[in-house]
Amino acid sequence: MATWQRIPGGITAPKGYRAAGIAAGLKPSGAPDVALIVSDVPAIAAGVFTTSQVRAACVDYCRQTLKQDATVQALLCNAGQANAGTGAIGEKAVSLSTERAAKALSIDPSSVLVASTGVIGKQIPMEPFLVGIDKVAEALSEAGSDSAAQAIVTTDLVTKSIALEMELDGRPVRIGGISKGSGMIHPDMATMLGFVTCDASVSPALWQEMLTRAANASFNQITVDGDTSTNDSLIALANGQSRTPAITAPGPEAEQLEAMLTVVCQHLAKAIARDGEGATALIEVNVTGAANDAAARQIARTIAGSSLTKAAIFGRDANWGRIAGAAGRAGVSFDQNQLRIQLGDSLLMDQGQPLKFDVQAAHDYLCRQAEASQLPAEAGGTSLQSSANSNDLVTDAGKSPLRPAMGHSPLEHPIVIAVSIGDGPGQGLAWGCDLSYDYVKINAEYTT
Amino acid sequence: MATWQRIPGGITAPKGYRAAGIAAGLKPSGAPDVALIVSDVPAIAAGVFTTSQVRAACVDYCRQTLKQDATVQALLCNAGQANAGTGAIGEKAVSLSTERAAKALSIDPSSVLVASTGVIGKQIPMEPFLVGIDKVAEALSEAGSDSAAQAIVTTDLVTKSIALEMELDGRPVRIGGISKGSGMIHPDMATMLGFVTCDASVSPALWQEMLTRAANASFNQITVDGDTSTNDSLIALANGQSRTPAITAPGPEAEQLEAMLTVVCQHLAKAIARDGEGATALIEVNVTGAANDAAARQIARTIAGSSLTKAAIFGRDANWGRIAGAAGRAGVSFDQNQLRIQLGDSLLMDQGQPLKFDVQAAHDYLCRQAEASQLPAEAGGTSLQSSANSNDLVTDAGKSPLRPAMGHSPLEHPIVIAVSIGDGPGQGLAWGCDLSYDYVKINAEYTT
Repeated sequence: MATWQRIPGGITAPKGYRAAGIAAGLKPSGAPDVALIVSDVPAIAAGVFTTSQVRAACVDYCRQTLKQDATVQALLCNAGQANAGTGAIGEKAVSLSTERAAKALSIDPSSVLVASTGVIGKQIPMEPFLVGIDKVAEALSEAGSDSAAQAIVTTDLVTKSIALEMELDGRPVRIGGISKGSGMIHPDMATMLGFVTCDASVSPALWQEMLTRAANASFNQITVDGDTSTNDSLIALANGQSRTPAITAPGPEAEQLEAMLTVVCQHLAKAIARDGEGATALIEVNVTGAANDAAARQIARTIAGSSLTKAAIFGRDANWGRIAGAAGRAGVSFDQNQLRIQLGDSLLMDQGQPLKFDVQAAHDYLCRQAEASQLPAEAGGTSLQSSANSNDLVTDAGKSPLRPAMGHSPLEHPIVIAVSIGDGPGQGLAWGCDLSYDYVKINAEYTT
Repeated sequence: MATWQRIPGGITAPKGYRAAGIAAGLKPSGAPDVALIVSDVPAIAAGVFTTSQVRAACVDYCRQTLKQDATVQALLCNAGQANAGTGAIGEKAVSLSTERAAKALSIDPSSVLVASTGVIGKQIPMEPFLVGIDKVAEALSEAGSDSAAQAIVTTDLVTKSIALEMELDGRPVRIGGISKGSGMIHPDMATMLGFVTCDASVSPALWQEMLTRAANASFNQITVDGDTSTNDSLIALANGQSRTPAITAPGPEAEQLEAMLTVVCQHLAKAIARDGEGATALIEVNVTGAANDAAARQIARTIAGSSLTKAAIFGRDANWGRIAGAAGRAGVSFDQNQLRIQLGDSLLMDQGQPLKFDVQAAHDYLCRQAEASQLPAEAGGTSLQSSANSNDLVTDAGKSPLRPAMGHSPLEHPIVIAVSIGDGPGQGLAWGCDLSYDYVKINAEYTT
């Protein structure tokens, strides 16, 4: 088994990366809105993008660029405008901004990828954006992960960041990541973004395969409301600066690296699920006994996305009927007489039959886990920007002191729903959040 | 084109049917909870049932019975217990109750179908149920549609009923229907049920084909929260008592009958969508320009089921971005530059680009339609049982006076979202409701 430890530093923890985030005036609030992540040397890039038929200009650009050449040196991101539903002007914004970043960094424009998040159908104000690109390039720093993480958010309550380290051939290899997203969703501020840096040396095809699998086990297994964004993007760089042996074929080294990559992606994905609009708890669904992993994941995702289950969790109610109902309609065939449902330590259903269980104990478990998973911003009633401590449970970068134990992170206290549907080897995890009044409030009171 | 008129009488409007609903004590409230619908002569039966892997005992029984012989004479229904998650005892409840009904009616048990709705995992109290079956058989009447419609509901705010008549070969042919459902869903009071009676003479295979297609264009196109029930059942009888020529092959007569059947099913389905938990408006999504009808229906259903779109409608906000986002993730391929979105008379997006539109006019349209679609029970603040007038806009049976024009029915004032994705011939309709605080309240505050 791979072993790794958590370290500070986020996306600049791996060797040879600098990052920064600055306020360019793209967000009406004046909050940071342009981020740049740069590798000192050309890096191998892999990407996973939205499957929506309605896509932002930057998504099409990244797909095409990566298809031609997977060597990339910079990731540019703006928050405020999604650059979706923007036509030819939106495409021009992509080329102008990547050219500007390339010029500031003295690299080729094709080495710059770009992601956007914010309001759909609004053009990015190019004058401040281009000036902001120059500014963010000047601000690049090896301690810049936190400022980049803050510049990519929209409606998020907290920033999301992680870095892990393991040993390969006696030398440290690191993977760092930041993400944003408050659901797939907010009104027209949709979008899940994830940026991952790694200092290992990996071949392009293998790195892409690893990222695709890691995304399938993480970002593709979270759901806030089922609404996929026009801009969802996950981009991972590997620059070889760890000076560890190149990984060019499947084997123990590749497996270890992929395992660590998967944990990074799962952390970032869970952080998004916990920060779901209006959420008061993080839900983890663990499905076993399916014919294969894909089937198990599908059932897990369906349960995590069930409005009825989510509303029951908000009501702190151990409603096994809704969990069983969601499992049954997931589109995966199984024998209902083998269905087993457990909530925390409480066994609610076995062999398809409801069991007598301690309703109060199950209720207490739901309350306890929800309490333990409160976001610091909620507990303190402070916003992302105004509290120096608002991130320190979720991020571990920059000046925020690392908490001594992972056990204190809100993400370590999900409400666990374990479902078994048979004797098969397939298993899968999914994450979601509860459905609260605030979800409706946030999304009904927003006006175009 | 087929022409038909609306008539009173619900499921007992077609010739040769009697129905009744009585209170047997299965619901804690003491409200009517056992319904029986009987054809004077053996009728051809067709059925469409839940696709869930977790199914009630009655669903499996109906499927098996219809597979052996499509000749049926009675439909029995209890409300209060779903008879799902009830194992062997639940199967026994099915055989005991169908045998009792058969004895009371002096017919063969295999001529009795049964449906259940209510709490999952609770056994039906058999003593009161069996006594109730005798009682409901004695109460059968040609004016009994309304009492049957009242005995099949659970959390519904209003009953759902319709009857239509057309001419075939110079003689009247009638189709009547009742349904229940407040979403696919309520907590553990899930379930959509639909019962349709017809006095035409149709061959079994053709009748099943007609019902399957009608269900695909109606019940399968409504969504309240995406949660499919363990008990969903739609059963249609055709008993030939209209004395019109037997319809045994596709042709103009079959087309006319199917068209009328589809309208009956769409009315019953829309009534369920409008009665969705917490709903304040009925939403109709009309997708055109797809490669085929199935693709158009899928997009329509995805938009109607999008939490973001539903919350925006609750906020009376013409949020085209959410509609475009839902269309994009429906799993159907299209060119986003051909996307066109219209809300009522307001064109919001064309050729994939957002348009300037009168935001106030669009808001007014949403308010106006929602206002016009208010359920009578809501307007008067009265419950299903306590108001003599609570049903008269939705049902047209029994003593309730028929409103002079269909235009006054809440179901005739949906909020219409029209989406075009290209130049293809495929089109599809779907119906849903908005997502309100009350949906969360109803589903979070329920406790097992």
